[in-house]
Amino acid sequence: MNDEPNGRRQFLKSLGLAAAGAATLNVDAAAPMGRGDVRRWDLETDLLIVGSGVAGVSAAIEARRSGIAALMLERQHLPGGSSGISGGVCYLGGGTPLQKALGFDDSVEAMLGYMLAASGPYASTDKIQLYCEQSLEHFDWLVANGVRYAQKYSDEKEISIPDGSLYHCGSERAWPFRERFKPAPRGHVPPSEHLTGGRELMRALLAAADALGARLIVNAEAQRLIVETDGRIAGARIHLDGKVRHVRARRGVVLAAGGFIHDAEMVKTYAPELAACSTPWGRAGDLGIGIRMGIAAGGATLRMHHGFVITPMYPPETILRGIAVNAAGQRFTPEDGYYGMVGHDIAYRQNGRAWMIVDADSAYGWNDFRLPVAAEAADIATLEKTLALPDGALLQTVDYYNRHAEHGRDPLFHKEAKFIAPLKTAPFKAYDLSTQHAFTPAHTFGGLHTDLDARVLDAWNEPIPGLYAAGRSSAGLPVAPYIASGVSIGDGSFFGRRAARHAARA
Amino acid sequence: MNDEPNGRRQFLKSLGLAAAGAATLNVDAAAPMGRGDVRRWDLETDLLIVGSGVAGVSAAIEARRSGIAALMLERQHLPGGSSGISGGVCYLGGGTPLQKALGFDDSVEAMLGYMLAASGPYASTDKIQLYCEQSLEHFDWLVANGVRYAQKYSDEKEISIPDGSLYHCGSERAWPFRERFKPAPRGHVPPSEHLTGGRELMRALLAAADALGARLIVNAEAQRLIVETDGRIAGARIHLDGKVRHVRARRGVVLAAGGFIHDAEMVKTYAPELAACSTPWGRAGDLGIGIRMGIAAGGATLRMHHGFVITPMYPPETILRGIAVNAAGQRFTPEDGYYGMVGHDIAYRQNGRAWMIVDADSAYGWNDFRLPVAAEAADIATLEKTLALPDGALLQTVDYYNRHAEHGRDPLFHKEAKFIAPLKTAPFKAYDLSTQHAFTPAHTFGGLHTDLDARVLDAWNEPIPGLYAAGRSSAGLPVAPYIASGVSIGDGSFFGRRAARHAARA
Repeated sequence: MNDEPNGRRQFLKSLGLAAAGAATLNVDAAAPMGRGDVRRWDLETDLLIVGSGVAGVSAAIEARRSGIAALMLERQHLPGGSSGISGGVCYLGGGTPLQKALGFDDSVEAMLGYMLAASGPYASTDKIQLYCEQSLEHFDWLVANGVRYAQKYSDEKEISIPDGSLYHCGSERAWPFRERFKPAPRGHVPPSEHLTGGRELMRALLAAADALGARLIVNAEAQRLIVETDGRIAGARIHLDGKVRHVRARRGVVLAAGGFIHDAEMVKTYAPELAACSTPWGRAGDLGIGIRMGIAAGGATLRMHHGFVITPMYPPETILRGIAVNAAGQRFTPEDGYYGMVGHDIAYRQNGRAWMIVDADSAYGWNDFRLPVAAEAADIATLEKTLALPDGALLQTVDYYNRHAEHGRDPLFHKEAKFIAPLKTAPFKAYDLSTQHAFTPAHTFGGLHTDLDARVLDAWNEPIPGLYAAGRSSAGLPVAPYIASGVSIGDGSFFGRRAARHAARA
Repeated sequence: MNDEPNGRRQFLKSLGLAAAGAATLNVDAAAPMGRGDVRRWDLETDLLIVGSGVAGVSAAIEARRSGIAALMLERQHLPGGSSGISGGVCYLGGGTPLQKALGFDDSVEAMLGYMLAASGPYASTDKIQLYCEQSLEHFDWLVANGVRYAQKYSDEKEISIPDGSLYHCGSERAWPFRERFKPAPRGHVPPSEHLTGGRELMRALLAAADALGARLIVNAEAQRLIVETDGRIAGARIHLDGKVRHVRARRGVVLAAGGFIHDAEMVKTYAPELAACSTPWGRAGDLGIGIRMGIAAGGATLRMHHGFVITPMYPPETILRGIAVNAAGQRFTPEDGYYGMVGHDIAYRQNGRAWMIVDADSAYGWNDFRLPVAAEAADIATLEKTLALPDGALLQTVDYYNRHAEHGRDPLFHKEAKFIAPLKTAPFKAYDLSTQHAFTPAHTFGGLHTDLDARVLDAWNEPIPGLYAAGRSSAGLPVAPYIASGVSIGDGSFFGRRAARHAARA
């Protein structure tokens, strides 16, 4: 069924060192091209996939498994997208074989409950429900396509052992969620050193796509969609080897080109809270091209201001015995929540400013590049003055916290018992948690509005024929606050698959 | 120049009682129509304006003053849009004749400084700057078109006298702005009883448009834009008198159809914080049709999650001697800020939940429909328990506030001196400030991305030829937080004018 004879050669070439990314051509008009303006098709396929991250490769695999041809275009010289440099965590649950093998009970209801409650008012309820219901099948699919997990659980908030493959990767054990939904470890990650599970994940999936006959072209820059007079998406105009090429997509186009964290103007325009973060996070291809192509075709966008904002205080977890305070000297979040939820509160609710107040027992034992020291003092009153906090505010906050911590209680935010300890031992420090100064990776979540089959929807919620989006080119499961590692990767592989399955039967 | 002979008759008819709004036709496809599908034009004009609120009528006036024909389409049976039921405040400054006549100094710099600082990271810097620089001309234009102001200043935070025409309508006198930018009253409002200045404003502007020969058709429902093969907007398909009609717009189309607060699904999808508010605020025509038509034509949208959230505690101002607290029993905002800024903090930063804690001296002297009483007690400890706040948290907050208030100080949020008073006299009350339970008007601010000439921009920030948007169909000056009454009305009239001026010379 694969009608691109050069697919395999191109694919293998891409795994080695290839030419640097093609120079950007100016797009002469931003609107989609009419089909009538295409004089000939330079390439043809069934499913054209823009991008080769986890969403793109999952679409490619599923297209081939459904018996249709698939062509992935990758703008960079290597495939894998931001997924390849991610932690490679996939949020799965409801009783996966790995959870069971390691002795953890989980249910679809508990997983669904946590995801909905933690995601807040922007949660895509229907998508989350489907995702949870099909999580076991999703796990099986990953394994069937070569993703390997080790039977090893890591109990810390960040995977702390090289062969750890399962951990509590969100706020499941933090208040208030632990009281409402039975916590379970749902972070499934291929074993790796130094949190490079994304490389293992993508190596497996790209190899599976290749083995199944999916084609990949690197250094190929998609520019505009091509639209039939009846509105159906017919293909795309791309830039390849210094030339403009027209690619016909008989079954549709999947926009899986990632987010836009590396287009500074776009971030500033759409997501200023993310623009203030110190560390745009993602591969260089996260330039919003997929989202832009979809908008030009009449696609609606959702949650363009959302993204993850990570305030990676841990490891080590001991720092969570401290308290995070805002510009009024008040605590504002459960410090032992997922670092994406803490980061969200700082970026979106505290104007990007906060400090972590620690004593000698909870401080890092070294100078840590992640969090600059904003102040250090022998007592809290001096710390408060140095930070220019309101008169007596920090003193009162620490006093209240300590008073209750002495009895193992945290009435404000109910940290886990192991993180509750009075701040008593000088010197005291204030780490700068501001999104601008702390090491604060940020990535965009806003994108094209899609349905359960990953079809791009217009402003009336009607699908645009032949157009799909998945991963961070779409508005999917991940919202602000980001509730757990692995939700974005999981969303990409889940809805990338669904796009291809729909295209194959449409 | 006006080539619609029936304009005046239609216009006058619209001022009386007319037939109820036309039933909604299903739009058979959401994409814009191709010009080739239009067999004949049923109506022709130079500038077609969808909507007759302040943005639409300002465009109509300016079109006529620039010598081109203008046709306003109004979906409802009466013109005026949400502007007509608004307070009619226009945010103007920099030394308007009214400010000067009433003895107030103001400068473009102070106005610009306040607007930028208060609006926060989403501020449209270029638009705000132009708006401030041309504020005097804007004032003159309103007056030249029949808008009348009385030489009477009102010193309270809400206009308290029927003939008051100038007041401090934002947070200019609240911390931290008063320390950085010289406060001035910038709320310009036609004198009226019961805050119905919008009726006076729109009566004047609609009469001016009529006198200048602009045409208005009511009960006319715009449905889709019509696009030439080269991408230029050629007109619109509308529904009128039970029939589909095609309207040619030789100079362009202005989408000025308001926001989408009355499309519940759209609000839930794009702006869930607003969906939780008790009182969707605006005329029934705020259904997002203008925004949708623009998206279908490839227009980008901005800030779709934004809107105003008003927590109208005052009048009377005496209630501002109380303190607003969140679910952790902490204060979180200067209570004496503009009620749109307080509402913003509750809706967007406190999960929609807060309480106003007052004593007998600061409580309303009556049962007020705006704020339900959540708890009443003889002491703060009991109030805290009734509200189920964390153990001792409210006690500590009140204690800290009182301790400093005794000396006329408010270290946390620096309320104006007249609002600082210890809470000492029983009974104590907690008013429910939650967006769900309190009277909380909400309106949308998200819309089409436009440039300084109100041209709709695509995803590459390029203007779509012949397409304009103004008022709440566009993303303009008003953002979340909403910084002052009159910014939305002022934005509509200012950029509605600019759209028409550009269309006339393009």
